[in-house]
Amino acid sequence: MINRKIVMEHDKKIALVAHDNKKRDLVEWAKFNRDLLAHHDVYATGTTGEILENELGFAITKLQSGPLGGDQQVGAKIADNEIDFLIFFWDPLEPMPHDPDVKALLRMAVVWNIPIACNRASADFMISSPLMDGEYDRLVPDYDGYRTRKIEMGGEAYQEAGKEAEQEASEEADQEAGEEANQEAGEEADQKGTDSDEDSVE
Amino acid sequence: MINRKIVMEHDKKIALVAHDNKKRDLVEWAKFNRDLLAHHDVYATGTTGEILENELGFAITKLQSGPLGGDQQVGAKIADNEIDFLIFFWDPLEPMPHDPDVKALLRMAVVWNIPIACNRASADFMISSPLMDGEYDRLVPDYDGYRTRKIEMGGEAYQEAGKEAEQEASEEADQEAGEEANQEAGEEADQKGTDSDEDSVE
Amino acid sequence: MINRKIVMEHDKKIALVAHDNKKRDLVEWAKFNRDLLAHHDVYATGTTGEILENELGFAITKLQSGPLGGDQQVGAKIADNEIDFLIFFWDPLEPMPHDPDVKALLRMAVVWNIPIACNRASADFMISSPLMDGEYDRLVPDYDGYRTRKIEMGGEAYQEAGKEAEQEASEEADQEAGEEANQEAGEEADQKGTDSDEDSVE
Amino acid sequence: MINRKIVMEHDKKIALVAHDNKKRDLVEWAKFNRDLLAHHDVYATGTTGEILENELGFAITKLQSGPLGGDQQVGAKIADNEIDFLIFFWDPLEPMPHDPDVKALLRMAVVWNIPIACNRASADFMISSPLMDGEYDRLVPDYDGYRTRKIEMGGEAYQEAGKEAEQEASEEADQEAGEEANQEAGEEADQKGTDSDEDSVE
Amino acid sequence: MINRKIVMEHDKKIALVAHDNKKRDLVEWAKFNRDLLAHHDVYATGTTGEILENELGFAITKLQSGPLGGDQQVGAKIADNEIDFLIFFWDPLEPMPHDPDVKALLRMAVVWNIPIACNRASADFMISSPLMDGEYDRLVPDYDGYRTRKIEMGGEAYQEAGKEAEQEASEEADQEAGEEANQEAGEEADQKGTDSDEDSVE
Amino acid sequence: MINRKIVMEHDKKIALVAHDNKKRDLVEWAKFNRDLLAHHDVYATGTTGEILENELGFAITKLQSGPLGGDQQVGAKIADNEIDFLIFFWDPLEPMPHDPDVKALLRMAVVWNIPIACNRASADFMISSPLMDGEYDRLVPDYDGYRTRKIEMGGEAYQEAGKEAEQEASEEADQEAGEEANQEAGEEADQKGTDSDEDSVE
Repeated sequence: MINRKIVMEHDKKIALVAHDNKKRDLVEWAKFNRDLLAHHDVYATGTTGEILENELGFAITKLQSGPLGGDQQVGAKIADNEIDFLIFFWDPLEPMPHDPDVKALLRMAVVWNIPIACNRASADFMISSPLMDGEYDRLVPDYDGYRTRKIEMGGEAYQEAGKEAEQEASEEADQEAGEEANQEAGEEADQKGTDSDEDSVE
Repeated sequence: MINRKIVMEHDKKIALVAHDNKKRDLVEWAKFNRDLLAHHDVYATGTTGEILENELGFAITKLQSGPLGGDQQVGAKIADNEIDFLIFFWDPLEPMPHDPDVKALLRMAVVWNIPIACNRASADFMISSPLMDGEYDRLVPDYDGYRTRKIEMGGEAYQEAGKEAEQEASEEADQEAGEEANQEAGEEADQKGTDSDEDSVE
Repeated sequence: MINRKIVMEHDKKIALVAHDNKKRDLVEWAKFNRDLLAHHDVYATGTTGEILENELGFAITKLQSGPLGGDQQVGAKIADNEIDFLIFFWDPLEPMPHDPDVKALLRMAVVWNIPIACNRASADFMISSPLMDGEYDRLVPDYDGYRTRKIEMGGEAYQEAGKEAEQEASEEADQEAGEEANQEAGEEADQKGTDSDEDSVE
Repeated sequence: MINRKIVMEHDKKIALVAHDNKKRDLVEWAKFNRDLLAHHDVYATGTTGEILENELGFAITKLQSGPLGGDQQVGAKIADNEIDFLIFFWDPLEPMPHDPDVKALLRMAVVWNIPIACNRASADFMISSPLMDGEYDRLVPDYDGYRTRKIEMGGEAYQEAGKEAEQEASEEADQEAGEEANQEAGEEADQKGTDSDEDSVE
Repeated sequence: MINRKIVMEHDKKIALVAHDNKKRDLVEWAKFNRDLLAHHDVYATGTTGEILENELGFAITKLQSGPLGGDQQVGAKIADNEIDFLIFFWDPLEPMPHDPDVKALLRMAVVWNIPIACNRASADFMISSPLMDGEYDRLVPDYDGYRTRKIEMGGEAYQEAGKEAEQEASEEADQEAGEEANQEAGEEADQKGTDSDEDSVE
Repeated sequence: MINRKIVMEHDKKIALVAHDNKKRDLVEWAKFNRDLLAHHDVYATGTTGEILENELGFAITKLQSGPLGGDQQVGAKIADNEIDFLIFFWDPLEPMPHDPDVKALLRMAVVWNIPIACNRASADFMISSPLMDGEYDRLVPDYDGYRTRKIEMGGEAYQEAGKEAEQEASEEADQEAGEEANQEAGEEADQKGTDSDEDSVE
């Protein structure tokens, strides 16, 4: 499968989500990293958004509470490339009424290959990465094969010819297969060779 | 719990979603009911949207394929009151990679109390209702109690005073508890007494 | 896949199920629509049945509480064509110990294509439909293909020749593929063209 | 919680269920134990029933295929005390479209405390038990407390006084708390002290 | 698929696991069967282990609490053939935060075909079996086919030649297909013909 | 809740897990970061382990295939503090037979707060972090409160006095609440202020 690249710009669109028992953890973490977060566009669901805005002192785009649709709003924005970084402290020790939404949101982050931190250690490792400071080309599988799959419609199969539609979410992904990837993630990252996202063609 | 009312206007915002093995069912149903659907705003996910636009001959707002985020886009629009009617023919005989998204979308329709048809019989009963022709006040629980719940933040609990935020999804819901409901669903419905949505106060 | 038709008679076999936080909603709805419900055969699970019988004043077939098997009793009756209409107000905001039973019951309603209302808005649209007053031929896929699939039994595959068994649930489904469907759902429905259930042959 | 006792008679009502990849295992096992099974009432779902009847040579009550409702039929019969022994070889290496039905059936067997064997080793241990030859009093929690719980109905709580209903499934369970249990499971079992089901009162 | 045999020795490695509402049940059962359990190696998770050690008076290998990893520790030991008998009283009437762990543990017991009792009736039937007294050859599918499946690695498929690795868990399983199984489960079992585990070749 | 600290040493214990459709992604990533990985202890499940050992040229501890128990082996090692870093490329577009194991493994990583990367972007951000080069004190809630919770045992509640057991997994966590955390994650991290893991006391 060919991978496309979607550029994550220097100023990222970061969603912060936390279940009730994890809100304190998230707020502590966000306050500690306030200056790192300040120049990004920050989104948060429900009460988390209220608390963070108070504690951090800058504007946050507030979404619905998770059980009322917030998780799906974040997921939709990931599919629309309007959110490209997810800090999601879900609670592993409490059954959730919106458990499917939680799983669906994790799925979305994985489908679109955005960085996702499910706990504080992951968030610490990610936010301290030099990749936070520069652009990062994230690889996203070219799902056009899936979109143009043949559908059985009762005898006659349906398949579009010359399908070009539905590429909204990958508008920025114009690199072609075979083209030389050119990710510059800052000096430290290069030394470490984290630039693993070379173009993939099958 | 106090219920709020959200007006469903004469022209509804209808989402049509179908898994691959159910696409033929949905297309047959939509073609049969083409004229009924034409004056509404119609949304559809992935390939379903392509096929329906071809078959019905009017414009459809096309969203992502379900496994790539389409279900969550529909769910988010329900939470934002941008979709208020869901025809969702999911496949009960095939395991789905995005099973949590499917469950999450069903949840969202139930949370916000929009009409949802999961199969053709349900869709037939709904579309033939006289309520399709008029306005319908759907009852939605006033979730402000949930939104202003106390959060334990490590000793000091957090709770907003005079919380007014996060009512985006219920902007149109300005009826007050105790106010007289005034649903007019057309002659047939009244005769049948379907006007069950009187205001509920606890 | 060929669809069979199963006649839903004028007097329907309606199951009413509601989780604890939704029982009040269901009772309000049922009282409002008491006269519409009275001539049908009504089933209800657990405590819901007790309450409804008191409030509605007519006899109700009472099944087990959901977590103790009531959902599966309803599902079994759907498979046996002993229930053909389901009002199921499940709770989207509370984790349920019998969550799989809830999902399984939804599945059963979809597999056998009976009208199912998961919330009050759906129930309002359905009960006000003119299809409630007449017969309705619901389409059910002819699952014989599935039933006679080849099973690998360690080398020798097993498949019945001339399989006629297991058609209990579709006894009433004697229309043949190609035969002209003849659904009469009342004047309003016809005008609206809801008679979408023409015979489907693949 | 007080436990009631439900007598499992010498001739048990045994359900045999197997997913496709496990049917061969189940058939081998049933043929090997044919004589042990012959005097019981045997139920089986879908194709499994067809195959077993051919291979074993005695009549079997055949239920729906699992994905079409068979699992829920078995579950309902467990709740109705019409099945009291379950051999269920589900497939741990294949995603199932009716996964919730599978989980729901397991739940039912646990709720009503009937012997359940999920694989061949468990079935071997169970069928070779001397308890198969005699009566066995299985303990079932007295769920009346659950059935008469208080339901919030919008201000006025609902609770029945002197609730006696819904004891269909435990009709045979007339032993009182404090009464001396009197389980005779055959000589071998007694020697081993498996008669652990003394009456439990809290 | 060829089945291998793994010998369960006279002294078995038994894990006892119970959710909070089922701990009393498990303890009662274990005390009643204390002498039967004493000569086996007994493992238990979390608090269950503490209580059992006090009540039974012999040493028990204690693992983590279930939600903190105990279920996965038991599952891992099953895969490593360090546990070969599971008594697992899970709670069918309470949503569990570690529901996936519970399901995963059940899966593991089925994958590796160890006797598993999910409730007291099952445990009674199993522990009273004469197979508890002797060796028992449990059949385990030879998963080498799965392990050496072809993996698509972007054009060039990957498959090992002469794969011998990863047989740790089946080290004791050296019987070859075609070899005569020789299970001796004691007199009672033989008379009953429970020796159903003859070698299976496809 | 008091947090304990568990030191992640310079040489970490990293598990690499990938579903079939993601194995190519993982291998590409691991080869690109070969030198960074080489000095750590690397674990991998099933075929992934075979491939990686070939491609990377250093020894890898190989565990079971995921569906056969590998995920639970990794989860158990996390609970035992034998794995403290997880790269887990699960497949969001394919239903998995061992879906509960997948969810359970994610849960375990979150419960014990180890860094976990679910896709390539997350892995890139983590591996390029300066925290990879030094020690990192990960915060883990002190679960003793959970372990010593009161269990209802039928009248008499059970609770240990002076509970000291079950601290195997947190042996290295001897810092006391209130003690000054002293995390040194290298120069770059300090400048960025990622050292957010100060001791937390409630």
